[in-house]
Amino acid sequence: MDTTRLKDFFTGLQSRIVAELEAFDGQPFRTDSWVRPEGGGGISRLIEEGDFFERGGVNFSHVTGKSLPASATAVRPQLAGRSWEAMGVSLVLHPRNPYCPTAHMNVRCFVASKEGEEDVWWFGGGMDMTPYYGQREDVVHFHQTCKDALAPFGDEVYPKYKHWCDEYFFLKHRNEPRGVGGVFFDDLNEGGFERCFELTQAVGNAFTKAYLPVLAKRREMPYDERERDFQAYRRGRYVEFNLVWDRGTLFGLQSGGRTESILMSLPPIVKWRYDWQPEAGSPEAELYEVFLKPQDWA
Amino acid sequence: MDTTRLKDFFTGLQSRIVAELEAFDGQPFRTDSWVRPEGGGGISRLIEEGDFFERGGVNFSHVTGKSLPASATAVRPQLAGRSWEAMGVSLVLHPRNPYCPTAHMNVRCFVASKEGEEDVWWFGGGMDMTPYYGQREDVVHFHQTCKDALAPFGDEVYPKYKHWCDEYFFLKHRNEPRGVGGVFFDDLNEGGFERCFELTQAVGNAFTKAYLPVLAKRREMPYDERERDFQAYRRGRYVEFNLVWDRGTLFGLQSGGRTESILMSLPPIVKWRYDWQPEAGSPEAELYEVFLKPQDWA
Repeated sequence: MDTTRLKDFFTGLQSRIVAELEAFDGQPFRTDSWVRPEGGGGISRLIEEGDFFERGGVNFSHVTGKSLPASATAVRPQLAGRSWEAMGVSLVLHPRNPYCPTAHMNVRCFVASKEGEEDVWWFGGGMDMTPYYGQREDVVHFHQTCKDALAPFGDEVYPKYKHWCDEYFFLKHRNEPRGVGGVFFDDLNEGGFERCFELTQAVGNAFTKAYLPVLAKRREMPYDERERDFQAYRRGRYVEFNLVWDRGTLFGLQSGGRTESILMSLPPIVKWRYDWQPEAGSPEAELYEVFLKPQDWA
Repeated sequence: MDTTRLKDFFTGLQSRIVAELEAFDGQPFRTDSWVRPEGGGGISRLIEEGDFFERGGVNFSHVTGKSLPASATAVRPQLAGRSWEAMGVSLVLHPRNPYCPTAHMNVRCFVASKEGEEDVWWFGGGMDMTPYYGQREDVVHFHQTCKDALAPFGDEVYPKYKHWCDEYFFLKHRNEPRGVGGVFFDDLNEGGFERCFELTQAVGNAFTKAYLPVLAKRREMPYDERERDFQAYRRGRYVEFNLVWDRGTLFGLQSGGRTESILMSLPPIVKWRYDWQPEAGSPEAELYEVFLKPQDWA
């Protein structure tokens, strides 16, 4: 299979997103290229201590291997042992202002090959938003943008991927969702390559439309130590999810991926406190009572 | 099997350690008892924002189940399905002063029972120290205390458990040990119950002798933002190890353990920075070059 078109899309998407984020922040993103000894490599674009973003990264990676590990193909065990190729863009952004949510987006494609047989491919991806102080209209905008992006692919797609997202970004040890969700999909290969690739492009291309207007609306909101403290506490949940439950992170760390690129998803400053509970009726309590309850936002 | 003696030792050990830590800190530890719906419960003793300890916990837990999960018995698959009982003390302490190391200790016993057959039991445990600014004499003292505690059980025990500790507390995704090590053992049942129980008691009883003199020697050392910053950065490694690699933490979180007690091991304030490297010749570089290299300390 010729993966040039995929690569063009993913690298182009990374560049376009970074350009928009740089314009939003005012500071340039750093660029780090890396090579994976076992095959492939990537380009990490990242920012720390920006004017707006406290830490964030937009990673492109394209890695190849000679034998697909069984752990990578839970739903397709018959593919274990094939040569493989994985490519995608993954980003996490942590604004400094606690009124601005953290967000994550990922789009990826996997190809497994064997001489004399047809290539097997599938797409995956999604985006989700994690507010500290929720605003209903922001969550509606984020979800509506996801819904609009997926509408051309069938009315059933958004509800299905929205539900999948609620299930995936869930901290079982806290019985708590990571945030207000968004969309998530994996193992997508139904309807042909063109449809699947287009759907994946639609998700990737929708990210800045879903997220930047939320940031633009909240970036001037004043905040104090109280909000920063709650943000640092809630960021602990982000760390817990990514290190305990996120399959992509764990697979990367346990299979010799580039640690510094993978862990760009972790927040810059995090606090843990024992058995902390928000005061009843406070804005912090509202996060738990209103926004961390999965519901139909769009 | 009558586990009263075990319980007396573990609860007594918890009380004695907490009393010593309270005397050292000057502030009392909080006490939280909890019940596990599936059987058993525990007592968490913890401190936050103490005069000396920034955060720390000393947990006793005694949990029981009707059917041992296969994941808990990797080395004894034939025991899966037995009723079981696990009991132990686990502690992690995070001093505020970056010249004072973080430390961890755990001692535990597991019993698997089946009607008509003999109980199967085994002990596990250990302790390890994680300095931010290493001091050779402190590391030697910590290891020498472990070595002395294990000497009555055979000269081969300390080197074996010391090596096991180096292997266990290792961040594979960083190719880096968690700290300067100590001792670690698991699946201990050779030599009879009395010997194994005594060895486990010796490890538990040695903890404050190994650790408190180090803290006493360093607690008055002045520090500044630079040292606090490096401490916060290095604490990120502690989080990464506990959430990605520590079997006890993962088993606890994934099997419905009490999250707030398990995650008392996480530090109060943590920072992540991209691809941070210490300046050549700095005290921070010395940590990597001297202290994060496994070696014979005692």
